[in-house]
Amino acid sequence: MTKEDFKVTPWEVKGNIDYDRLIKEFGVTKIDSKLLKRIEKHTKEIHFMLSRGVFFANRDLNWLLDEFEKGNKFFLYTGRGPSGKIQLGHLQTWYFVKWLQDKFGVELYFQFTDDEKFLFKESSYEEIQKWTHDNMLDVIAVGFDPKKTHFIVDTKHAGLLYPEAIKFAKKINFSTLKGAFGFTNENNIGQIFYTSMQAVPAILPSVIAKKNIPCLIPLAIDQDPHFRVARDVYPKLGFYKPSILHGMFLPPLTGVDGKMSSSEINSAIFSTDSPKEVETKIKKYAFSGGRDTLEEHRKLGGNPDVDVSFQYLKFFFEEDDKKLKKIHDDYKSGKLLSGELKQITIEKINAFLKEHQNRREKAEKEIDKFMYKA
Amino acid sequence: MTKEDFKVTPWEVKGNIDYDRLIKEFGVTKIDSKLLKRIEKHTKEIHFMLSRGVFFANRDLNWLLDEFEKGNKFFLYTGRGPSGKIQLGHLQTWYFVKWLQDKFGVELYFQFTDDEKFLFKESSYEEIQKWTHDNMLDVIAVGFDPKKTHFIVDTKHAGLLYPEAIKFAKKINFSTLKGAFGFTNENNIGQIFYTSMQAVPAILPSVIAKKNIPCLIPLAIDQDPHFRVARDVYPKLGFYKPSILHGMFLPPLTGVDGKMSSSEINSAIFSTDSPKEVETKIKKYAFSGGRDTLEEHRKLGGNPDVDVSFQYLKFFFEEDDKKLKKIHDDYKSGKLLSGELKQITIEKINAFLKEHQNRREKAEKEIDKFMYKA
Repeated sequence: MTKEDFKVTPWEVKGNIDYDRLIKEFGVTKIDSKLLKRIEKHTKEIHFMLSRGVFFANRDLNWLLDEFEKGNKFFLYTGRGPSGKIQLGHLQTWYFVKWLQDKFGVELYFQFTDDEKFLFKESSYEEIQKWTHDNMLDVIAVGFDPKKTHFIVDTKHAGLLYPEAIKFAKKINFSTLKGAFGFTNENNIGQIFYTSMQAVPAILPSVIAKKNIPCLIPLAIDQDPHFRVARDVYPKLGFYKPSILHGMFLPPLTGVDGKMSSSEINSAIFSTDSPKEVETKIKKYAFSGGRDTLEEHRKLGGNPDVDVSFQYLKFFFEEDDKKLKKIHDDYKSGKLLSGELKQITIEKINAFLKEHQNRREKAEKEIDKFMYKA
Repeated sequence: MTKEDFKVTPWEVKGNIDYDRLIKEFGVTKIDSKLLKRIEKHTKEIHFMLSRGVFFANRDLNWLLDEFEKGNKFFLYTGRGPSGKIQLGHLQTWYFVKWLQDKFGVELYFQFTDDEKFLFKESSYEEIQKWTHDNMLDVIAVGFDPKKTHFIVDTKHAGLLYPEAIKFAKKINFSTLKGAFGFTNENNIGQIFYTSMQAVPAILPSVIAKKNIPCLIPLAIDQDPHFRVARDVYPKLGFYKPSILHGMFLPPLTGVDGKMSSSEINSAIFSTDSPKEVETKIKKYAFSGGRDTLEEHRKLGGNPDVDVSFQYLKFFFEEDDKKLKKIHDDYKSGKLLSGELKQITIEKINAFLKEHQNRREKAEKEIDKFMYKA
């Protein structure tokens, strides 16, 4: 598969993603150093996922900061389609969202799109409900502020969402979805309607407060098309367009193409994996940028750009830029072997998961606190 | 427009409707004398709208009566798309539904499809809400038993309806809607989803009771396509297919083509019209089957089949078969003049509306009693 062949839709990500081309095709804006500085003015430090370009693009973030500086505080909106276990790609985004919540001191609306997953997957309604509950434990384990974090479950909060969703739906026709998502006449009518439900949380606090509140949506860029479709509708309904922060995809174990996905079991590390499972997966499946022989590796060095273990450190697990650079350089020079790099990654992931899983175990009784109540 | 040119969809009824052809095209069954006798066994009397063929067709009514005779009581489900004033065509169906409720002693779920009307009309959300409230007054004025009658408002009860609607939506694709409703790519995505919301009340009592309860839907036949689309889905979700009783369309003032519609102001008599307005409308607009001159009329007689005033008496306002026959025969022979026939109709309608309006005035404070509470 060549660079030309990658595909990014809310329901499918494959190929070697050319993020620069995505920026053009989606009509979003790259985050530059000036914007980073502007964020830093408020956050005092800059998150490594921003400085390393893991969150690399945006819509209207400068406008959002204009409003923030005028005292018009934004809220965060992100979500999860609950159809399986939580994997590292999800957690990577959510830990970044937590950082945003902490640094800006803002509310977070977290949407569980159980309707979407039911409509797009073979799974039964009951299975999806089970995953909704399971996935909530991970979201809570991230450590969001329960006083400022509100879970919206599409089916449970339909009484709140549907009356607003039809206002979006009235202004979006099927032609538009054919263009944006590649839908056909064979799509079911729930799938066709669904994007209206995803549009709503971006205005829900404004509806409730009866005044316009800016919204920032951090997401992996495959979700951008939903908001591209709804984008022009927001002002027609009297609301601000939401600002968006776009993240890259954490690669699957199998290589830097595509994204880590819960539905491909041997390509993902799950939030509930044991230390042993993590070790086996990294050792057995994590695509290596190393050379075929020890001799060759020492002589020619490895390629961190295609090495999945290194990418995990860069995306998520090695916060310290200096340490990351040393690993990068040592690997590239051949000083650090693939096995050693994998070992570092295994330890980092397991240390992280130990903490996460500790919090996850205590999350069950917190669910009610997080559930949005009208 | 010839007989060939009539059109019947949930959103458009026009032309000289050939009900026998509709029976074939929709795949429904004509009500015969055997079925009438079977109904009469339970109701002790047979409603004139049944004996005169105003309610003329059905789906699975024999099955429904089988279940009823086994002690498996059905419930009634009907509804209203609230986008304007209530006219005689609506009331005609609802007074028949009340008769069914009284005779069988059953529950009625009455759906207000405010989402549908918002999605299909130019009207604002607020206008539709205003009409929903207004139309409830008329439904209450019909005299349904408040203990056994439950209002479902799609946007207000979305929390209850949407989780079930997506189960229907998952099994209906856009191709099917193109065939059933003539939808195109330009239809908005709310219109496309909507039919799933209309499918739900037929199973709602079963969902709540956690056991299968038969459902009877009396409706004007233009609404049948919704249930034709959902029909095969019910058993896939483990529910009975609803039984349906199909009514003809009360003609507009302008002639026996099409149906009376709230959106055509000079073709409808509204529930709130004053005696004077009724008189003017019938005198000025009601299409007459009489002859051009008094002399001709006396000699050749009128045609009650195309006379709108006579049709109103037959459909709704003259319950007594003998009296109706006399009016019919006298008009046909030329003994009864058009002006006289109109006068009879005016008096009948005004006597009816006086009672209806009296009850309507007291309906406001009853709304809460009727509203379904989960």
